[in-house]
Amino acid sequence: MSSEDRVASSRRSVDRIEADYLLETPDIVERAVAAIAGEQSSGTFLPVPGETPELKERAAATVAAIENLAPSDRPSLPGAAEPRIGGRWNRAKITISWPLANIGPSLPNLLATVAGNLFELKQVSGLRLLDIRLPGAFADAYPGPQFGVEGTRRLAGVEGRPLIGTIIKPSIGLTPEATAEAVDTLAGAGIDFIKDDELQSDGPGCPFEARARAVMEVIERHAERSGRKVMFAFNLTGDLDEMRRRHDLVRELGGTCVMASLNSVGLVGMIEFARHSELPIHAHRNGWGYLSRHPLLGWSYTAWQKIWRLVGCDHMHVNGLSNKFSEDDDSVIAAARACLTPMFDDKPCIIMPVFSSGQTARQAPETFARLGSADLIHAAGGGIMAHPAGPAGGVASMREAWEAAMSGTPLAEYAESRPALKGALETFR
Amino acid sequence: MSSEDRVASSRRSVDRIEADYLLETPDIVERAVAAIAGEQSSGTFLPVPGETPELKERAAATVAAIENLAPSDRPSLPGAAEPRIGGRWNRAKITISWPLANIGPSLPNLLATVAGNLFELKQVSGLRLLDIRLPGAFADAYPGPQFGVEGTRRLAGVEGRPLIGTIIKPSIGLTPEATAEAVDTLAGAGIDFIKDDELQSDGPGCPFEARARAVMEVIERHAERSGRKVMFAFNLTGDLDEMRRRHDLVRELGGTCVMASLNSVGLVGMIEFARHSELPIHAHRNGWGYLSRHPLLGWSYTAWQKIWRLVGCDHMHVNGLSNKFSEDDDSVIAAARACLTPMFDDKPCIIMPVFSSGQTARQAPETFARLGSADLIHAAGGGIMAHPAGPAGGVASMREAWEAAMSGTPLAEYAESRPALKGALETFR
Repeated sequence: MSSEDRVASSRRSVDRIEADYLLETPDIVERAVAAIAGEQSSGTFLPVPGETPELKERAAATVAAIENLAPSDRPSLPGAAEPRIGGRWNRAKITISWPLANIGPSLPNLLATVAGNLFELKQVSGLRLLDIRLPGAFADAYPGPQFGVEGTRRLAGVEGRPLIGTIIKPSIGLTPEATAEAVDTLAGAGIDFIKDDELQSDGPGCPFEARARAVMEVIERHAERSGRKVMFAFNLTGDLDEMRRRHDLVRELGGTCVMASLNSVGLVGMIEFARHSELPIHAHRNGWGYLSRHPLLGWSYTAWQKIWRLVGCDHMHVNGLSNKFSEDDDSVIAAARACLTPMFDDKPCIIMPVFSSGQTARQAPETFARLGSADLIHAAGGGIMAHPAGPAGGVASMREAWEAAMSGTPLAEYAESRPALKGALETFR
Repeated sequence: MSSEDRVASSRRSVDRIEADYLLETPDIVERAVAAIAGEQSSGTFLPVPGETPELKERAAATVAAIENLAPSDRPSLPGAAEPRIGGRWNRAKITISWPLANIGPSLPNLLATVAGNLFELKQVSGLRLLDIRLPGAFADAYPGPQFGVEGTRRLAGVEGRPLIGTIIKPSIGLTPEATAEAVDTLAGAGIDFIKDDELQSDGPGCPFEARARAVMEVIERHAERSGRKVMFAFNLTGDLDEMRRRHDLVRELGGTCVMASLNSVGLVGMIEFARHSELPIHAHRNGWGYLSRHPLLGWSYTAWQKIWRLVGCDHMHVNGLSNKFSEDDDSVIAAARACLTPMFDDKPCIIMPVFSSGQTARQAPETFARLGSADLIHAAGGGIMAHPAGPAGGVASMREAWEAAMSGTPLAEYAESRPALKGALETFR
């Protein structure tokens, strides 16, 4: 489905919620889908006295589409019933549709409806939420990103290319002063964006306030020199009051970004925090593995990121090409494309995908070619710090790689007259 | 590990956080565990300049235990590296230990540390969080359940046996008035506890306020008659302000319980709501399947429920014996036992497990025998509504089944002089 089709379909129905799933079942597909639709709306395991035709008409979920796929010769997940047809677990892409009136435009209640008590049904030996389409009432009820691509570019002073970023390492254990020293080096090297590690928030060894003060002093000093303020995503993950206080401190200190771990904070905490925030929200997806690693269970990134974009996140992590994790490149690109695909035609909620994990200058051309956009944050750790000419060489090599990518010049050719890129290509193989 | 050992171990270290995992890896176990410990503390994929011996001493996670298990002949999850030792994926139970000072006693940051970017490591072909042990600082930082078993029993007026409960069905689609009619029937039948379905919160078809008012009028009327107030868990899942407003309404109307969907609200929203709440919190786990259904991925209930107990939940769903879902009975009993196992010796945080899904009088004896406790809510839908003598017969049969179970009398024998129980045994086979 093209992005245009997807926008169109997101407005296709003004009063229905739709969800697509990949289903594997020991049952006949039609019967399993009907069971899911029933369980997630007006039905239950047994016929119930009050389930009148009028109530069903009003509240029942309906099966909007079934696309049969090749069956499996074994169940993907344990605990399902025995197959109805000997030795075959049927697979299909299915679409279920709910009346908006069941829950109203409420994201928390949307989760209970499209991702509630259905993954553990006995009729299910595999179920993955592939996508959701929401009526416009959701766009009216939630703010969406306040900054997105444009606001982030404006605050970072970077146009026409990706933001080149990095992560403070070691992840945890640095004092505030040592963190500020690292930032000094990176800002001096010309970096656009730096983030705290997701392990570092407000431990006694590196308190948030002391870190923010020390880091912002360095960043302001470099900004006076260079005329451009490094965007630092301070990890303020914590209880709600803590997050609000930390946000206010960062804003007072002149900071331009805050970071939160989505799976740590959760939906309602993020909704509340986003309503308070006046800075871009850099959303970390750590824990994503437990939601997604099995291909027949849990969430696709396409479905998941829509929730957080509506909530108000501005940047979302999507892993990176040739990454150090188990995710393949197709999945990474699909995730990044999703972030850049409009959600509603009058409220696109476009956000910046964040590429990271094992990134160097080498991944720029393929990232650009496959994504078709430079609206992203490209974060490298070793790819910057371990450059033979030091961090300045690392940052320069990443920028040069993107110049090459965007001008259609092969990296090796572009590197001939550019020592930083040349050094990167020689070092990172 | 007995519950006594677990309490002891929870205080074993005053300044370390421990997590147990079931690991499957294509690598040598020791190397994979070291990679996880490094990734989740001061290390990263490449050696980092700032990772000094002093910093490691301060911040590095350590491997506290490895118990090797039989290897697997195929990977449980896709995307992992190829095996180091041909065709074998090694398995082990492992324990990793972190300094409390890395994060302080912060539950959101605990999640990023023990359940963050580790499930998707290439060295991992399976990883499940089995248990966590927290230093006492966490007990000081979070409230734990305000009501738990004793407070729930006091408000419900039920001692010495489980609360007999049910769920309003159809799940969704009833008007407030129809909901109140159902409550009228159930209260007349002598029920102790009723809950909204997790699909029903505040949709336009059944607004929360109208439902709460209609239901509480019925409940108060029955309470005047019987001297005992039915506990109704109103599902107030929503944005934070909505949840607080709905809670206040329920309290003003004389209600004694509220319900929230944990995976919809998320951690920080629940922390904030629990601090506001003056009523028992009935915690629904819908979505649990996507966190747990694969045995080599995600969360065990033992680890997961500890988070929510500290936050302040009073009741938690654990499925039921012979349930309609894919979970087996051993897993159900382990989950319920976990809820009744003290977390800290000076702050046990004991909560009421909620048994539901396909429950009838039949499951009482085994539930009691295997759990060794009657501190639970036993919720039945069809097992009450579909009783041949109607809901009053259904409720009576559940109570009688528990009398039989707790007195060690076989159900069939106890049913001889008790028509309600007899009817249940004849109907539900």
